[in-house]
Amino acid sequence: MARTLWLDSGRRLFTWDQIRLPFETVELELASEQDCAKAIVTMQVRGAPLIGAVAAYGLAFALRADARDEALRGAFDRLLATRPTAVNLRWALERVMQVVRPLAPGARADAAWAQACAICDEDVACNAAIGRHAAALLTRLARPHRALQILTHCNAGRIATVDHGTALSPIYALHEAGLAVHVWVDETRPRNQGASLTAWELRERGVPHTVIVDNAGGLLMRQRQVDAVIVGCDRVAANGDVANKIGTYLKALAAHDNEVPFYVACPISTIDPHCLHGDLIEIEQRSPREVTHLLGRDEEGRLRSFQVTPDDSPAANPAFDVTPARLVTALVTEQGVIPAHVDAIAQLLSGGGA
Amino acid sequence: MARTLWLDSGRRLFTWDQIRLPFETVELELASEQDCAKAIVTMQVRGAPLIGAVAAYGLAFALRADARDEALRGAFDRLLATRPTAVNLRWALERVMQVVRPLAPGARADAAWAQACAICDEDVACNAAIGRHAAALLTRLARPHRALQILTHCNAGRIATVDHGTALSPIYALHEAGLAVHVWVDETRPRNQGASLTAWELRERGVPHTVIVDNAGGLLMRQRQVDAVIVGCDRVAANGDVANKIGTYLKALAAHDNEVPFYVACPISTIDPHCLHGDLIEIEQRSPREVTHLLGRDEEGRLRSFQVTPDDSPAANPAFDVTPARLVTALVTEQGVIPAHVDAIAQLLSGGGA
Repeated sequence: MARTLWLDSGRRLFTWDQIRLPFETVELELASEQDCAKAIVTMQVRGAPLIGAVAAYGLAFALRADARDEALRGAFDRLLATRPTAVNLRWALERVMQVVRPLAPGARADAAWAQACAICDEDVACNAAIGRHAAALLTRLARPHRALQILTHCNAGRIATVDHGTALSPIYALHEAGLAVHVWVDETRPRNQGASLTAWELRERGVPHTVIVDNAGGLLMRQRQVDAVIVGCDRVAANGDVANKIGTYLKALAAHDNEVPFYVACPISTIDPHCLHGDLIEIEQRSPREVTHLLGRDEEGRLRSFQVTPDDSPAANPAFDVTPARLVTALVTEQGVIPAHVDAIAQLLSGGGA
Repeated sequence: MARTLWLDSGRRLFTWDQIRLPFETVELELASEQDCAKAIVTMQVRGAPLIGAVAAYGLAFALRADARDEALRGAFDRLLATRPTAVNLRWALERVMQVVRPLAPGARADAAWAQACAICDEDVACNAAIGRHAAALLTRLARPHRALQILTHCNAGRIATVDHGTALSPIYALHEAGLAVHVWVDETRPRNQGASLTAWELRERGVPHTVIVDNAGGLLMRQRQVDAVIVGCDRVAANGDVANKIGTYLKALAAHDNEVPFYVACPISTIDPHCLHGDLIEIEQRSPREVTHLLGRDEEGRLRSFQVTPDDSPAANPAFDVTPARLVTALVTEQGVIPAHVDAIAQLLSGGGA
C-alpha cells in the first residue's frame, strides 16, 4: 500500500478523502494552497503529522503562485489558522519558512516543495522508530496463550500520518513480526475516527480488532481485558501534559485506576516547549453539527448525514482534552521512551536523548 | 403531561415507543404478556423502574389468560429473562408473585393488576422523594450569577420511570422552583438514550441543556464547568458498587479526579442485598449491531438505520459497567441520602432509615 500522501509520476500530489472512508476510497488531488487548506479545515485530511505535511505542501503551492515576502507571510498565516490545536502544523510551516525566507523569491517554491517532501520522508522514518520503541514496550506485556490486548482512541494510524502511524505503528510492527495482537478500537465520537478510520486501516492490514463505543473501555480495563492503552497526541506541553482527541483523558483515568500502562506515541515535533502545561493549550471548539448529525451509510448503500438529537436541542463540541502527565506511563518518541516529565522532556529537546 | 405508563378510560395500558423518540411520539398499547416482554426486550420501554412496572403488568396479563400455578411460574420466568441486569425487574415480579401465589387462580389476575398499579403509584412517590432529597444536595452547590451545572449520563428521567425520573427528578424540582439549572447531556452511545431521550424530555419541560458526546465530560470537569454529576442505576450491590449504563464509571473517575460530587439516584428497590459487590453483577452483552448501526433521521425526515463502521469490522457491546463505591459521593434514596457503604446500606435495608 502506498503512503497516505503521495506524488504520482507527474509529481501531482494526492491523498485519500478521509471523510468518505471507510465506505468509499476516493483519491483527492491537492493542487493549490486552497486545496490544502480546505482539506485540513474540512478534515478530508486530519491527524497532526499529516496536517503538518499537507500544510507544508500548501505553502509550496502558494509560493508557486506568488513567492514575494508579503504573499509568503499571508499564506503562512492562512495555513496556520486552519486548525488551532496541533503543534505540528506550526512546526512544519515554520520549518519551510526558515528555509525559504532567506532565498530569492524565484528559488522559494522549489525549495519549499523539497522541504515538504523531506518532512514526509522524515515522518515515515520517525513513525517507524516510534513503532520499534513502542513494540519493545508492548512485547513485554504479552501473556502466554492470549493475544496482546491493546486499546486505542481516535486514529493515530497510517492515515493520520504519511505512513505507519504513531500509536498504531507498533501494532503493525508486532503484527508483521507474528505476535498475536488484538486492538480494542474506540469509536471516538463525534467524528468516529476510530470506528471509521482505525477499523478500516486495521482491517486493510488484517490486524484483529473489535470496535467499541467510547463508553466501554473502562469496563474492559476493570475486567483485565486490556494490557495497554496507546494513543497519539496533538500537542504535548513542556511538563508532559498531553492534548489529544476528546475522551483521551477518560481512558487515561481508567488505565490509571486499573494499573494498565498508558502510552502516548509522540513525535518530538509534537512537543511544544513554549507551552508550560496542558491547561494553556487552546481547545478547538468545533461545530455542534458534528454532535447532532453523523455521517453513515443507509440501507441502500448511500453515504448520508443523519440527525441523532431532537430538533433545537443545543450541542457543544470541544475537540480535544488534556491528559495530565501524572496519568501518562511514558511518551514514546522517535528517539526512545521517556517519562512524561518536564526534566526528561527538556533533556530530550536539548539533544540529550531519551 | 401524563405518566410514562398510563391507563386510558377503558383501563387499557399505554406507553411511549421510546425507540422512535425523539423524532416520533408514538403511543404503544401493551395488551398482553407478550406485548410487555417484547417492549422490554426491544427497548421500546427501558429504564429500571419502568421495566419493573411493565413486567408487573405483563404478569397480570398472563394471569388473565391462564392463572394456574404452572402458567404463573412460566410467565414469571419468561418476563424475568427479558433483561438480565436490572434488579427492579425481579423485585417487581417477585412482589406480584408473593401477592398472587396464595390466592385461588380466579382471583389472581385482578390482584396482580392491582399490584402493578400500586407499583406505579409508589414509583411516582419514590421518585418525587428522591427529587426532594437530591435537590437539597444540589442547591448547596449553586453559585451566584451562574446556572447550576449538572452532568448526567444515559436517561434516568421521566421516561425511564412512571414519572419524575430518578436522576432527573431533582432537576425538574429545581427548575420548577425557579433555580437556574443547566444540564450537560451525555449522548450515551451506543443507544443514545441521552441524546435522544434525556434531551427530548428536558426540552419538553423547558430545562436548559446541552448535548455532548460521552468523551467530553472529562474536559468539562477539568474546566470547572460541572458542579455535580447525577446518574441513575440499574443495580446497586450491598457494598455500594453501582451498575449503570456503560460509561458511567468513566464519568465517576473524572468526577473523583476533579473533586466534583458524583451522586447516584437510587430507589431502594434497586439495591440488591444478595449481591455482595459489583464485580458479581452480570453485565448484559447486547447486539454488536447497536454499535455498528445507529438510528437517526435522514435529510427527508425519515427514521432510518445507518451503518458507521466498515463492513466486517467486529464490534462488542457491553451494556453496563460497574462504578466502585469509593467513587460515589452518595446514594440518594427515597428515604434520604446515604454513603455508598455496606453499613449504611444494611442499616437502610433493615429499616433503620437513611
